Order: sequence, then structure tokens, then C-alpha cells
Amino acid sequence: MSAERDLDLLLPLIIYEASKVVEADRCSLFILDRERNELWSKVAQGSKNEIRLPVGSGIAGQVAATGAVINIPDAYSDERFNRSFDISSGYRTQTILCVPMRDANGEVTGVIQALNKRGGRSFDAEDEELLLALGAQAAGAIENALLHEEINRLFEGFVSASVVAIEARDPSTAGHSGRVADLTVSLAQTLEHLENGSYANTRFSAVELQELRYASLLHDFGKVGVREAVLVKAEKLYPHELEMLRARFQIARKDLQLQSYRRRLAAVKVRGDKALAEIDGEEDERLAEDLKRLDEVFDFLLTCNRPTVLAQGGFERLTELRKLTYTDSREQSQPLLLDGEIRSLSIPRGTLSTEERKEIESHVEHTYRFLSQIPWTRALRRVPEIAYAHHEKLDGTGYPRAIPEKTIPVQSKMMAISDIYDALTASDRPYKKAVPHTLALDILNKEAKGGQLDRELLTVFIEAEIPRKALGSVK
Amino acid sequence: MSAERDLDLLLPLIIYEASKVVEADRCSLFILDRERNELWSKVAQGSKNEIRLPVGSGIAGQVAATGAVINIPDAYSDERFNRSFDISSGYRTQTILCVPMRDANGEVTGVIQALNKRGGRSFDAEDEELLLALGAQAAGAIENALLHEEINRLFEGFVSASVVAIEARDPSTAGHSGRVADLTVSLAQTLEHLENGSYANTRFSAVELQELRYASLLHDFGKVGVREAVLVKAEKLYPHELEMLRARFQIARKDLQLQSYRRRLAAVKVRGDKALAEIDGEEDERLAEDLKRLDEVFDFLLTCNRPTVLAQGGFERLTELRKLTYTDSREQSQPLLLDGEIRSLSIPRGTLSTEERKEIESHVEHTYRFLSQIPWTRALRRVPEIAYAHHEKLDGTGYPRAIPEKTIPVQSKMMAISDIYDALTASDRPYKKAVPHTLALDILNKEAKGGQLDRELLTVFIEAEIPRKALGSVK
Repeated sequence: MSAERDLDLLLPLIIYEASKVVEADRCSLFILDRERNELWSKVAQGSKNEIRLPVGSGIAGQVAATGAVINIPDAYSDERFNRSFDISSGYRTQTILCVPMRDANGEVTGVIQALNKRGGRSFDAEDEELLLALGAQAAGAIENALLHEEINRLFEGFVSASVVAIEARDPSTAGHSGRVADLTVSLAQTLEHLENGSYANTRFSAVELQELRYASLLHDFGKVGVREAVLVKAEKLYPHELEMLRARFQIARKDLQLQSYRRRLAAVKVRGDKALAEIDGEEDERLAEDLKRLDEVFDFLLTCNRPTVLAQGGFERLTELRKLTYTDSREQSQPLLLDGEIRSLSIPRGTLSTEERKEIESHVEHTYRFLSQIPWTRALRRVPEIAYAHHEKLDGTGYPRAIPEKTIPVQSKMMAISDIYDALTASDRPYKKAVPHTLALDILNKEAKGGQLDRELLTVFIEAEIPRKALGSVK
Repeated sequence: MSAERDLDLLLPLIIYEASKVVEADRCSLFILDRERNELWSKVAQGSKNEIRLPVGSGIAGQVAATGAVINIPDAYSDERFNRSFDISSGYRTQTILCVPMRDANGEVTGVIQALNKRGGRSFDAEDEELLLALGAQAAGAIENALLHEEINRLFEGFVSASVVAIEARDPSTAGHSGRVADLTVSLAQTLEHLENGSYANTRFSAVELQELRYASLLHDFGKVGVREAVLVKAEKLYPHELEMLRARFQIARKDLQLQSYRRRLAAVKVRGDKALAEIDGEEDERLAEDLKRLDEVFDFLLTCNRPTVLAQGGFERLTELRKLTYTDSREQSQPLLLDGEIRSLSIPRGTLSTEERKEIESHVEHTYRFLSQIPWTRALRRVPEIAYAHHEKLDGTGYPRAIPEKTIPVQSKMMAISDIYDALTASDRPYKKAVPHTLALDILNKEAKGGQLDRELLTVFIEAEIPRKALGSVK
């Protein structure tokens, strides 16, 4: 399917053809506007103004109303003819052939009118047939153009429905898809003006920009398949895991207190009630120390829980803490720290375990699977592929496929820059603070120097001030 | 947009018209198959067999290859003419007019061939023009039909992409959308055969069934906007809430133990170390009783947590338990039960609080919002509306709008039956067991008797064995 049909080019051609084959001086094409019950002149040879006339009025109006051909050999002797157009234009109408335009269902969708057969003759039955056939062709072309428009509207509708779905899923990233689309399309449009470098004069056609916009709007669609707790995880332990850890330390504190009182009672048995004050003194001191040691462990765990880069020593201490136990309320010895907690708290960077990172990364696979279900037109067929590669890195360390630079579409390389920029500067994510514009650019520059983002594209992104251009303002 | 175009009706009409206007004995229309580089006879007057010929071969093949008109006044004296068709058919070709069919872009998409101008004359320039115009009309009609097909494919693709998204969101209900669609469409098709009752002879057209299928496939789409913890909540407290409650009771047990040992020590101060055995005996007994009482409270809470209908007394006891406290490890008095827990455990039916029920119910609003974004064709325009009403009840107690019976589309009434049936019998939901077929029908019958589901539709559903018919087997 070719992308765009230009009725403004096609219909004058049909009308030119019509006046040639029926040997008319002038032809006009009127389109029927059913809602207003009017005809309007889409193409009118010899006139630049749009003419609107009610269905039923004038020759063309009657043809539109009845669907019957009108062939007038002498206009001025026919009462249906309205001279006012001639009077205002100075034209002299002699013969008129006016036929309905019918679509494939036989419905009248407009009218073609031919004026003044050359050579002073009248239009004949052959002319009627020719003009009817050309009318059907024009009707087909118009319907065609409307269908193409409808297909475009469908894609627009599907894409915005999908954006509604993503944002219903994760309202905290509302607007992200739209901003990434604006940034990426703006960057793509800027490449055209480049005079040097690998991207000099790279030009994206209107439909390629549309493809890029759809891919950008839908790049995160797969997040509908990722658990929200993982999507917004702010620390290494989930909030309820930290709450449980805190409760366990409470039990352990109670346990230390209970042990202390049991020891006091046992000491009284041995040393007698006279020593009570002394025992209490010793035990109070010991208990305070035990509690302090336990609280320090908990404070250390709180530090580990934050998403910073831990020194190696930290992990070693976590592993040591594996040995700690407490006695529960049924006299069973229990580990103070669960293996899963130690694993989570040992995450060296960020807040996600390997499994969780994989789950987040799977959103790209979900996106690809979803987009591949859609029968994109030929012109838009790369939407799934472009979205699929938006987390790939030039040095092959990206995900989900870790593909090498040369197989990453340039559109995805641009989207990667926009996506990171917006994720950094967005202020609406509960699990992290917004980074200011200049710091975001620094981070992007670092990734480009590290060989992960495309340096040339990033230079354009920064020098052409794409964020300011596309988003209006920057932080 | 009208729904379906039947090229099999339209093209013979164009060909009939063509042979009339150019006064030919026979006309044929060949479509260009670019992939195989062949022409095939879509319409051939005087022949019932499909003819396939390579582009470039024969008169039609040459027109397809060059795009130029061929007008032959005497076939048997023209070397391009291949007599074999005449020989096999017994027809005698004299004059031939063969013109390309061009689409709106001017691309050749086929060929029209007229044979034997009536009256023994040759085809003239007028005939060429007429046939070219009709060819363009046919090309337009074909392209139109392809665009309609493409629009259908787009809808199919988008619907299946959306189903992929729902199931990525909630794999445990995988297949639900498809089963509800099969059940509902099967029920709709059965109504046609009814002879009595309100639905006698109710007939859904092909496109109405398509509309119903889309609405059914997408009815739960809005669940992408509901938190998964709520979607699969199996008990009144979430698992981590129950875990926290259990931990708090552990602290309270430890607290009872600690209090007991403190009392023992205090008693020794008063009664002296000689009374130690006696004190231990008294305290052991008291502690055991205290712990037993506490454990009973916890067991009672576990009972409350299950999704059964509680007697009123249960709630009263929960309210009394509000008074219970324990002392935490920092000597602060804390409530044993949080207000939120009491509220959750007091849920009289099912497992969801009012807010959670509202959140679940909001999926219908999400579905409607999502579906309303899609520019459905006129024929499919009720998809959002049908899906919107699938949880409405005939007695006005449904959600989200609680609309009265007369405003619920019959399609939604059918979908309500299928949806409940499948939700009951599905074995893939982690938070509840599958109900056998016959019990599911009992439950549906009870709802129908209660005035919530349509009795007549349910009778058809059961008597026509829709589940067996649509799903192949029942449990």
C-alpha cells in the first residue's frame, strides 16, 4: 500500500482527462456533502473560488438529487439553467453535460459537469458514458483517499489507546512516552540540516517520522507485563520486606531482654536475693550493650538497603551476619537474617536483583511481542524493530539481545538518548529524584564516551538543544 | 464506511458495462499478480475456468508488461495473437481491444480485454478511452476492497495485540478473553434458531458477531490498570499483612514471657529466694494461660481472614480486640491489632474492602476509556458500549454505572453469563478453586432467579449446551 494519496493532484488530472475525452471547454467536479446536503466544487476549471450549492438546486444540484444524467444542448433555452454564474463570470454557457459520480456501491458521491462541447456540437450518448466512467473513477479515488485516511486514523487511535493503557498501568510515568516521542522526532528532523559527519543530510520522510513517533510512543508498552512492585522498587528490600526485618529485630530485642531476666533469676538462685541489686546492675549493663550491638546491626542493614554502591567490605560483613540467630517465642532458634535478605542487600548497584532486572528488561520483549501482533502497513513495518532495540548499546552490552552497533537502527539509537534523558529528568517517578538538565547531559556524555550511546547523535541532541525545542523548557 | 465489498459481484458488473459501452461481444478482466508475475482472469465472459498467463505473453500479457493499449482490427493477421484459446474454445476472435487497468497512482494493476466489436467494426479511439476509464474504475474498486480487507486485518491485529497485553499482565487468566468470546458468540448465534420468547429469531449479522467478538475479547482489558495484588487477593489480609500480624503476635508472646520473668524477679524481692520454686510454679501457670489466650486470639483472626461469611458476633469480637495492647522492645505500649487490619478482617463477604472492590470494578471504566480511544468503524462502533456493560445486572445492582435492565445491551447480557461461567469454571486462578460445570450452572440459575442475569438467555445457554459447543468440553 502506498502511503499517501493526494486528491488535490489526482482529481484535477481526472477532470483534465474528462474535458479531453468529451471535448468540453471546461469541466467541474462537485463533491456531495451529505451532512450539509450541499455540493461543493472540489475542482472547477476556469474558477478559483469554491462554489457551494444546495442539493436540488441548479443543474448539478438536480443531478446530485436524482442521480440522473442531464444533457442540455442549449443552456439559454432550458429553464433549469441558472444564468447567474455566467453573469458574474462573463462566461457564456452553451451545452452542458452533467453526470453523477457513483461509488462502488452505486451511491452518488458527487457530480461531474462538462460545459461547451468543442466545435459547437452537443454532448452525445458516448460522452455521457465516458463521463460516467470517469465519475466512477473519481468516486473510487475519493473513497480510496478516505480509506487511507481511515487507516491513518486507526493507527493513531490504536497508538493513543495503547498509551492510555500504559499510563493506566503506571501513572507515575505518565507523559514519558509522549516526551520520548517528541524528543526523538525532533532529533530526527534536525539531522537533515547537518552538513558534516556520518549523519549529514540524513532525511526522514513524513511517514518515516510517523513510524518513529509510533515506535517512541509504544516503546514501553511491555511494562504492562511487569509487576508494579518491581517497576517502582526504590530500595533493595521491598517495603514489606523491610517491615518484616524490623519486626524480627524487635523480637530479637525482646529476646535479649527476656534472656537477661532469665539470667537474673538464675543468678538469684545461686547468689541469693541479697545480690539482687548487684545482679541487676551487671545485667542492665550487659543488656544495654547487647541491645546496642543489635541496633547497630540493624542500622548497618538500613545503610545496605539504600541503592548506593557498597564497598566490598560491606558484603563480607553481610555474609558474617548470616550466623546471627535469636530465639523465637516458642524457644526455637531462628536466623536473624534470611538468605534472601542477604542476597537482596548485597546487590552491588541499584536496587534490583538479577531476576528483577531480567523482569524489568523483559518489558522490551513484551513490547516487541505486542507490536508484532499489529499488521503495520509496509511504510510502518519497522515500528516493532525500532522499539525492540531502544535499550541496546553500541558496545553490545544492551538488552534484551545485546546486539552489536551495526544492527541497531539509527532510530533506536536516537530513542535511547531521548529515553535516558527523560527518565533522568522526569520528576514523576516515586523511586528516584529528578536530575537537572545539565547533569542529565553529563551522564549522557559519560555513556557516549563509554561507547554505549552514539556520540554524534548526542552532540546533535545537545547542540541543537533538542530538549528545549521539543519539550518547551528544561530543568 | 460500508462494511463489505463484494468484488465477485462488482467486477462482473463493470465488465458487463464495458462490453455494453464498447459494443464488444466479450470482455475479460485480468488481475496482475506481481509476486508471481502472472495475470489471472478474475472475470472472463464466455469462460468458467481461471486463466493464468505470464506477464509479457499474449496480448494481455504484453499490455500488462508495457502499459500500452493494443487495438487489433484483425486478430488472425496479427502475429501477436495466439490462436490456441480459440482452438480449445471454438470461439472465433476477430477484433481485440486490450487496455491496462491503472490505479490512482498510475500503476498497472491488471488488464481489460474486449473481443469482437459488434457489427464487424474495429474498436476505435473512443472505445479505448471508455475502456481505460472503466479499467481505472475497476482498479479503484479492487484497491478499495483491499483497503477494506486491510482495515479488517488491522482490527484483528490490534485486538490480538491487546489480548497479548492482558495476558502478559495476568497470565493466570490466560485464555479467559478467548473463552468468553467463544461462549458469547456461540450464544448469539443460537438465538437465531429460537422460536419462542423475547429473543425469538434474533439474528446477529456477520459484522455484529465480529463486534461482539471484539467486545468479548477486550472486556477485561482495563485490568492492565488494576494492581495485581488486588486482582489475585485470596484472603482478607494480603500475605505480607498476615506475616506482619504474625510477627506482632510473636513480639506480644515474647512480651508476656518477659513480663512474667520481671514479675518473678519482683516477687523474689518481696518473698525472698526461698519462695523461688513457688513463684516459678505460679508464674509458669499464669504465663501458659496468658500465651494460650493470645494464641486463641490469633487463631480467631486466622478464621476471620478466610473469605467466608462471618456471623455478626465475629465483628463484635473484632471490635473488642481493638483494646488489646502489648509493650514493644522500647517499653512503648502498642495496639496488638491495627485499625486497618480490623477493617480488613471485618469484610463481611469475599476478601475485598470497599476501596479494593472499587479498584477492581474500575477495570470496566479503564476498558471503556481504552476502547473509546479506538476509531471503530460505524459497523463496530458499539464495541466500547457492549464491553462497558458486562458487569451490569438486570436489577440495577451491577457496576460501574448500576444502569437499569432496559439500557443494558443484549450483547452485554450474554457476555455477563459467559464471563461468570468462565470465571467460575476456570482452573487457572490462584486465589480460588475451579467450580464444576453443573455447580456453575446452579450458581448462574440462582443469579437469574435473583433477577440479576437474563433468565431466557441463561436457559438458551444451558439448553443449547453452549459451553460444550463453544469450548469443546466441560468439567
